[in-house]
Amino acid sequence: MAQLRIALAQTNPTVGDLAANADRLIAWTRDAAEREAHLAVFTEMFLTGYPVEDLVLRTSFVDASIRTLEEVARRLEREGLGELPVVVGYVDRAGLAPRVGQPKGAPLDAAALLHRGEVVTRTAKHHLPNYGVFDEYRYFVRGDRLPIFRLHGVDVAIAVCEDLWQEGGPVSVVGQAGAGLLVAPNASPYEKDKDDVRLELCARRAREAGCALAYVNQVGGQDELVFDGDTVVVDGSGELVARAAKFEEELLIVDFDGLPESAAEPGTYPYDAGDGSTITVERLVLSSEPVAPYEPLPARVAESLDPSAEVYSALVLAVRDYVVKNGFESVILGLSGGIDSALTATIASDAIGPERVNVVLMPSRYSSDHSVGDAEELVRRQGVTARVVPIAEIVNAYEKEIELSGLAAENLQARVRGMILMGLSNEHGHLVLTTGNKSELATGYSTLYGDSAGGFAPIKDVPKTMVWELARWRNDHSGPGFLLQAERPIPESSIVKEPSAELRPDQRDTDSLPPYEVLDRLLDDYVEKDMGSRELIAAGHDPALVTRVIRLVDLAEYKRRQYPPGPKITPKNFGRDRRLPITNRWRETTG
Amino acid sequence: MAQLRIALAQTNPTVGDLAANADRLIAWTRDAAEREAHLAVFTEMFLTGYPVEDLVLRTSFVDASIRTLEEVARRLEREGLGELPVVVGYVDRAGLAPRVGQPKGAPLDAAALLHRGEVVTRTAKHHLPNYGVFDEYRYFVRGDRLPIFRLHGVDVAIAVCEDLWQEGGPVSVVGQAGAGLLVAPNASPYEKDKDDVRLELCARRAREAGCALAYVNQVGGQDELVFDGDTVVVDGSGELVARAAKFEEELLIVDFDGLPESAAEPGTYPYDAGDGSTITVERLVLSSEPVAPYEPLPARVAESLDPSAEVYSALVLAVRDYVVKNGFESVILGLSGGIDSALTATIASDAIGPERVNVVLMPSRYSSDHSVGDAEELVRRQGVTARVVPIAEIVNAYEKEIELSGLAAENLQARVRGMILMGLSNEHGHLVLTTGNKSELATGYSTLYGDSAGGFAPIKDVPKTMVWELARWRNDHSGPGFLLQAERPIPESSIVKEPSAELRPDQRDTDSLPPYEVLDRLLDDYVEKDMGSRELIAAGHDPALVTRVIRLVDLAEYKRRQYPPGPKITPKNFGRDRRLPITNRWRETTG
Repeated sequence: MAQLRIALAQTNPTVGDLAANADRLIAWTRDAAEREAHLAVFTEMFLTGYPVEDLVLRTSFVDASIRTLEEVARRLEREGLGELPVVVGYVDRAGLAPRVGQPKGAPLDAAALLHRGEVVTRTAKHHLPNYGVFDEYRYFVRGDRLPIFRLHGVDVAIAVCEDLWQEGGPVSVVGQAGAGLLVAPNASPYEKDKDDVRLELCARRAREAGCALAYVNQVGGQDELVFDGDTVVVDGSGELVARAAKFEEELLIVDFDGLPESAAEPGTYPYDAGDGSTITVERLVLSSEPVAPYEPLPARVAESLDPSAEVYSALVLAVRDYVVKNGFESVILGLSGGIDSALTATIASDAIGPERVNVVLMPSRYSSDHSVGDAEELVRRQGVTARVVPIAEIVNAYEKEIELSGLAAENLQARVRGMILMGLSNEHGHLVLTTGNKSELATGYSTLYGDSAGGFAPIKDVPKTMVWELARWRNDHSGPGFLLQAERPIPESSIVKEPSAELRPDQRDTDSLPPYEVLDRLLDDYVEKDMGSRELIAAGHDPALVTRVIRLVDLAEYKRRQYPPGPKITPKNFGRDRRLPITNRWRETTG
Repeated sequence: MAQLRIALAQTNPTVGDLAANADRLIAWTRDAAEREAHLAVFTEMFLTGYPVEDLVLRTSFVDASIRTLEEVARRLEREGLGELPVVVGYVDRAGLAPRVGQPKGAPLDAAALLHRGEVVTRTAKHHLPNYGVFDEYRYFVRGDRLPIFRLHGVDVAIAVCEDLWQEGGPVSVVGQAGAGLLVAPNASPYEKDKDDVRLELCARRAREAGCALAYVNQVGGQDELVFDGDTVVVDGSGELVARAAKFEEELLIVDFDGLPESAAEPGTYPYDAGDGSTITVERLVLSSEPVAPYEPLPARVAESLDPSAEVYSALVLAVRDYVVKNGFESVILGLSGGIDSALTATIASDAIGPERVNVVLMPSRYSSDHSVGDAEELVRRQGVTARVVPIAEIVNAYEKEIELSGLAAENLQARVRGMILMGLSNEHGHLVLTTGNKSELATGYSTLYGDSAGGFAPIKDVPKTMVWELARWRNDHSGPGFLLQAERPIPESSIVKEPSAELRPDQRDTDSLPPYEVLDRLLDDYVEKDMGSRELIAAGHDPALVTRVIRLVDLAEYKRRQYPPGPKITPKNFGRDRRLPITNRWRETTG
């Protein structure tokens, strides 16, 4: 039985920045070497970042990925790190003849083993996810290999991400072929309550494979996706051995003791993979000699976060990375005194620091005194930069030229505010954050080019009832990496008062919508659970409300398409994972 | 050898309007019966419309599709049409146990044969396209059958759309199993120059199958897709027998003579489909007796359209259907006197009639006299409804509250115009058409929430040089179904003058962009052909221009995502068929 220390690089690559990702690989491998690891494992497509979407269909991009991989291998050797084997994800190509239906260039979601300046072996993901936020049949062809390399006497297998999730394929072959450890680079986005699913999956696959399993996951924001890290290691019986933090970068060091030594013959062996395909196992040997006995480090198991901490941390990380990775220095948003903009401002302050957050108070003839007061109170508490731009004169100027009434007049006010923010954004280079929540977005309770104008929508996937929860939670807690130091950063009055868009006298959200407690339950059943109208009524929702709300949701598809991207925290965030035709005459209520 | 008359229903279903689509099926089947056809064939997913996207993941929607199919079968019988067999596309389900990676409910892109009040047999598409505008791995599971039914002694096989395009699968089995005719329901979107590809494909498959092939295609606009019809029939040697019009509904009647009679035994037979799958051929008999000899009708082969006629007709149809299917009565757009808005107005007048087209002239301090004059001239020629809304005072009102300079000040003017159109749209219920062309969209030469504000973007996929071509063509031609009667509807001055955004004094497009002849060639190579920077330079493009333009294109991704949908006429219309990460540090020029 052998020992082995592995370093799992839970890191934050940037899509398309191959040079910076390569630098990061070198730095983190040095760290792993200094901590005397015997193997370093990076995440899926780490060198290119994930997901790269149509970039992968460009020959020049795939060329650059392969070239970067080979350069990194040589550079590791040059910098004295060549003895430490590194597993890393990148993009390769399969070299297949073109055919209809096959992605151009036959790209592979690949992983390679680097050692002594060489790319020792290459493999690629077999199961291609094409559901939810994934479109991988569009981008990749299947891999059909399972490399198993011997490291200090222990056989280590490599499988990529989705190959853990689906039945059959390379992971099903590990048990038949025999290995002491399975390492799996991942880029698995955050979703509320997904961590338990992941741990259970890893435990099950470890038991099936009869070996320990190290699951290393990307961390960081990438457009609508937030990668939460949550790297986990389980032993061959499925017991949790180690776990990294969520929403933070971490080099997780894990000491294994008692891994089986192997003397299996090197070579290639075909296996029936149980899914109609044949997987070729490639056995190779880096080193057969077990490591000299050493004192293992204590296992690190990061504490789990409570549900609000988890969601809030996801939003902070998403905003920070969207701002930074897109090259912005600062953000701007409208602050109304209501809870949505208050929470958005707080997330932004936590993400990039209040000194880089600009808020604009844009009172109209319908703004209440308490709105302005609550907005000013938030500014005082957080120390964000504020200015006031009254909109009345601008609205008057429009109304002198065109006659608008009712909803059109209400929308005009929201649009004047949106255009002021866009103007200030263009003039000063701030990224505009929109402040709409998921309940509004779902029902279309929002103005196209008004409150929806901007570059990123931090709480787009947060239902109104959760907006309140998060605000209360944040007033009572801080978290790792939150840059805002203020105590109770959100004025209590913004949390407790009745929601109003304040676009006409004495307007209340409940004039147009049911109470949010009722609405959010219904939206969850309709949107997330895809329940039909009969099911919704059977589940206890008011029949008239079902008719009214699902009609609102279906008709708001165009508005949602025009909405800025925002961090996904639920299975269906109205981003790339829920797509309805705009021209759609299907009415659930008649179905 | 036997005769057979088939009726191919090149029709325009509406997505989600199952009741209306069913009514249309009944009406067109009656027409087919009156014209003494022996078989009527409708398009792919005709009963649901195509594409339905996430609707297909709803249990209630699939239930409704299946129920509608069965009701339609009974209704045909009730209405005295039960003797005429009907092939029609709809959505069914495979009844598979759920598993990771499989679309929820295991939906099928199905087709059924209806006869004497019954659903006689059902099949489903085997090859699922998941490239370009198609995402069918997300929505469907594969079919694995090939029904061959005997009709008046002739064996007729049914295969759906993509099964013609890819190698192997049901179509490859037709030749082995033997059939006299293959009918293929399609929903194949228009793309410039695609008709020749389609005809060649049908000819090849007919020769491979050794039988005649009837390809019936959907017609009409559906969000970004335009279905062009172009239904074609070829004989077993691949010769063109009949062809329907493009961009119009048509019941194409085709008389076959000399089709082989069959006496093959009914039953089910497994075949190796050459793509790793087994296809079950189901042979059944409706009628063995050949039809009594009759005088065939002369073959109808619609004339082909010239390239400009084709594109222009596609845009007219797309606008008409987007307006009508979304329930609008009228459109509104800004008319600047430039060629983009002039062409857009003309397309709209042709689509829904000039009396339903509203244009707004929104002169600013930088508008030239000729701009206003050209706009007024178009109004005179076409008879659209015009109003003038000067923007200077509104712009002044903004500038009193916030200081904006340079690009921010230019954007403000565009945004004021956008907000005026949106206000009038909200007040009067007009659909806002945006007037940006593809060259602008590609390079980001457009204002977010300014000229890009609206519901539909008719020339979004039309490069500037083609905008001029189409304008010239339209001044010289009319076309079937164009509702505008005016002679030379576009003022010549709008066509010949130098393009300018007129957002600052003496501004010219060439201040920011290369001449459009140069730009459009470069964009075509970079965007449509995915050429990398080295290839572009090798192809003769100016190196400095390559660097500048592809940087513009890559950085404009966010703006493009916020752009309204518009008809797709090229392989990459910046709609659902080209997807880049917004946070993307890849620079082609460094690759």
